[in-house]
Amino acid sequence: MSTALFEYYEANKERHLEGLFQLLRIPSISTLPEHKPDIQRAAEFLANELREMGMKNVEIIAGKEGQHPLVYAEWLEAPGKPTLLIYGHYDVQPADPLDEWTSPPFEPTIRNNNIYARGAVDDKGQVYLLAKAVEGFFKTEGKLPINVKFLIEGEEEVGGEHIDEYVEANPDRLKCDAALVCDTELFAPELPTITTGLRGLVYTELEARAAAHDLHSGMYGGAAPNPMQALAEMIVRLKGPDGKILIPGFYKRVKKPTAAELASWKRLPFNEMNFMKKEIGTTALVGEKGFSVLERLWSRPTLEVHGFRGGFTGEGAKTVIPAVSTAKVSMRLVPDMNPKEIIGLYKSYVKKITPKGIKTQIRVLSSAPASVVSTDSRWIADGAAALEQVFKKKTVYMRSGGSIPVVGTFQKFLKAPSVMMGFGLPDDNLHAPNEKFHIPNFYRGIETVGRFLELLGQ
Amino acid sequence: MSTALFEYYEANKERHLEGLFQLLRIPSISTLPEHKPDIQRAAEFLANELREMGMKNVEIIAGKEGQHPLVYAEWLEAPGKPTLLIYGHYDVQPADPLDEWTSPPFEPTIRNNNIYARGAVDDKGQVYLLAKAVEGFFKTEGKLPINVKFLIEGEEEVGGEHIDEYVEANPDRLKCDAALVCDTELFAPELPTITTGLRGLVYTELEARAAAHDLHSGMYGGAAPNPMQALAEMIVRLKGPDGKILIPGFYKRVKKPTAAELASWKRLPFNEMNFMKKEIGTTALVGEKGFSVLERLWSRPTLEVHGFRGGFTGEGAKTVIPAVSTAKVSMRLVPDMNPKEIIGLYKSYVKKITPKGIKTQIRVLSSAPASVVSTDSRWIADGAAALEQVFKKKTVYMRSGGSIPVVGTFQKFLKAPSVMMGFGLPDDNLHAPNEKFHIPNFYRGIETVGRFLELLGQ
Repeated sequence: MSTALFEYYEANKERHLEGLFQLLRIPSISTLPEHKPDIQRAAEFLANELREMGMKNVEIIAGKEGQHPLVYAEWLEAPGKPTLLIYGHYDVQPADPLDEWTSPPFEPTIRNNNIYARGAVDDKGQVYLLAKAVEGFFKTEGKLPINVKFLIEGEEEVGGEHIDEYVEANPDRLKCDAALVCDTELFAPELPTITTGLRGLVYTELEARAAAHDLHSGMYGGAAPNPMQALAEMIVRLKGPDGKILIPGFYKRVKKPTAAELASWKRLPFNEMNFMKKEIGTTALVGEKGFSVLERLWSRPTLEVHGFRGGFTGEGAKTVIPAVSTAKVSMRLVPDMNPKEIIGLYKSYVKKITPKGIKTQIRVLSSAPASVVSTDSRWIADGAAALEQVFKKKTVYMRSGGSIPVVGTFQKFLKAPSVMMGFGLPDDNLHAPNEKFHIPNFYRGIETVGRFLELLGQ
Repeated sequence: MSTALFEYYEANKERHLEGLFQLLRIPSISTLPEHKPDIQRAAEFLANELREMGMKNVEIIAGKEGQHPLVYAEWLEAPGKPTLLIYGHYDVQPADPLDEWTSPPFEPTIRNNNIYARGAVDDKGQVYLLAKAVEGFFKTEGKLPINVKFLIEGEEEVGGEHIDEYVEANPDRLKCDAALVCDTELFAPELPTITTGLRGLVYTELEARAAAHDLHSGMYGGAAPNPMQALAEMIVRLKGPDGKILIPGFYKRVKKPTAAELASWKRLPFNEMNFMKKEIGTTALVGEKGFSVLERLWSRPTLEVHGFRGGFTGEGAKTVIPAVSTAKVSMRLVPDMNPKEIIGLYKSYVKKITPKGIKTQIRVLSSAPASVVSTDSRWIADGAAALEQVFKKKTVYMRSGGSIPVVGTFQKFLKAPSVMMGFGLPDDNLHAPNEKFHIPNFYRGIETVGRFLELLGQ
């Protein structure tokens, strides 16, 4: 890394922190309509930063009625060099329960070398470090080592579709060689990490309908079909107590991780007892025999029930047999499972196991395939190298059991692989009270992204 | 029946209907605090009627803070004759959804020889016919053929405890030979019916706790225990798809109805196809093989799940594995099952079938044994005879799969059997919009109760 750039980053640490604090003070909660003006303010704040540092064609893209704006910016004056699309989001989760915060969620406060604030790590701190890393090049060299496009959204926490629609409609404007997605975490403190795979998701509502109207369990119990009993029966036939999913053909296309990947996971500092007792807080883990916990979380599909709607759930005793009840059921997919095919298999199987007296209906609320990035690509290799230079440790590869839909979107419409490089920690309280970002990781993030751009420019 | 009494009932039909209309106009909805004054008005209305007809020691018993009053009255001037405790309730269910009523719920309206109003049949119409039947004796003979006590409550629709507490605390005042409970229905139009048995109830909350906090199904799905999956597994192990309850010892004390009772049920005009398609509105009935539908409803226990609390049930997709989830699970009991014993068996079995990683806890919200009255008793025999004289048909005996807790209370604290004689019809829309009471049945009710008192006095 150029000495000038390194020194610039070092000399501006305080200023960078102050800038981040300004962004964190804007309560840009995407799910609450009353924060709509804050959403706008956060977008404008970032657009201003990008404009002032030297990015071109900076634009706040309003979207349709009810959508939150995207912030776009580009600098394309490095002919022959790769183009990197940099992604992040400026919206945050709600802060409640407020009384569990030690300091106010929108008044960033430093304790133990951490910034405490809603959005500190998810994702304002990481969006801001991306901007500051790029700014360093303009300030020291007057130009960037590669072509860069920023695309920052304000609907990540609400699963909004603005970014998907925009990417689909503007593949030429967003054309790039790779994307940098900075919304993940380190596997463990001080351990440089790249996330190379995400599970996909099929999320459904499974509705069971029995009678034409709610029934009194005294008058009808014992002869009338109960849709909640039927759902329980179906759920147990969808996934057995051993964690095996019983839908015929479900595992057909499941691809094993490579031997190298499996071997690397074994080397991760993962303490199963700690994971079970401290992180989850339970007395036993469940799931498929013959697979390690990390495999079960990252490279094996799962089926989970998230809630049952219908019937009586208030205080006290109401003896109702509901006419209809709906279970929220999702499946996490791994490579190379095809969401469409899985939905088909699921639907036919549910039809088969529907108890008599019950009519079932399935609504698919969302579906996305799993995604993996090969560790052999130059994008991943340069990301790993940049991390190693900063953290002074070998970069590890992990996957995530969750989904980052935008990674699939970039793959699908731009044919661009994503480098998922993040600087959060597993205990950063994302979506919870006392969200934090470890300050050294904020600075390491800036330096890492700077080095990554340099390597890509070489 | 004395000619004078019969003629009195005939001559006063219009007046009786007008009196009932006054009572029906009072919106004495027990569950809504804003109707507290109406509750009081309904109690006072009945107390006045009882006082004016000649009942003694008429009293409005206020109860504890928040309880609705009981109306008590007595006439004990028939030494050597039996004492009958007459029960009913003056409170009603809420009327919503209001827009489904053809005429306003608290403006009684006659259509097709039916009175349409909230409470028409449940239970104001039946309470009022009891009062008018008794009044006839005062008006024609100046005295009653037996000793009579009225105890009318205002918390039946909210499962209030005032009446239970009062009966338990005042067994001497309420001492009686039998009770007359007028809150049931005819098995079919024109068919005189006495209900001789009720199922008991154990109502529980089965809580399953897994993690210390809610988990993201992407991050943890496949390794973390899911309490909703665990509840589904447990529910299927509590009751199999064949309707058999799998708790060891559950059926041990179940008493078969007598051969005579079973034979009489076979003679009831019960159309299974109609029950399934029209009354329930489903495509198949469920339950235990080898038992008729009426047996499954009346003389076999059942286990039903009424709702699952926890997780996500809103619109859209939230991928949560909840830390805790609770199922509302009830069991209907038949003679001679012991609620305490059943709770014990249920608790040990749930402990046994609790999946690993899950902690279960059971809360019992209510419990009451089943009750049956022997058809051999003179109270039932006289009730049946009175019905036959009025309806000109042989009285049939049915049971109900539901519970009327006050019947158990009278049995427990007063050692009094209940004659459950009611004049409603199966399609009277209890607890629903357009509740009705068939006017001829209102008049038949008055005459039947008059004849019943006469027979008891002989």
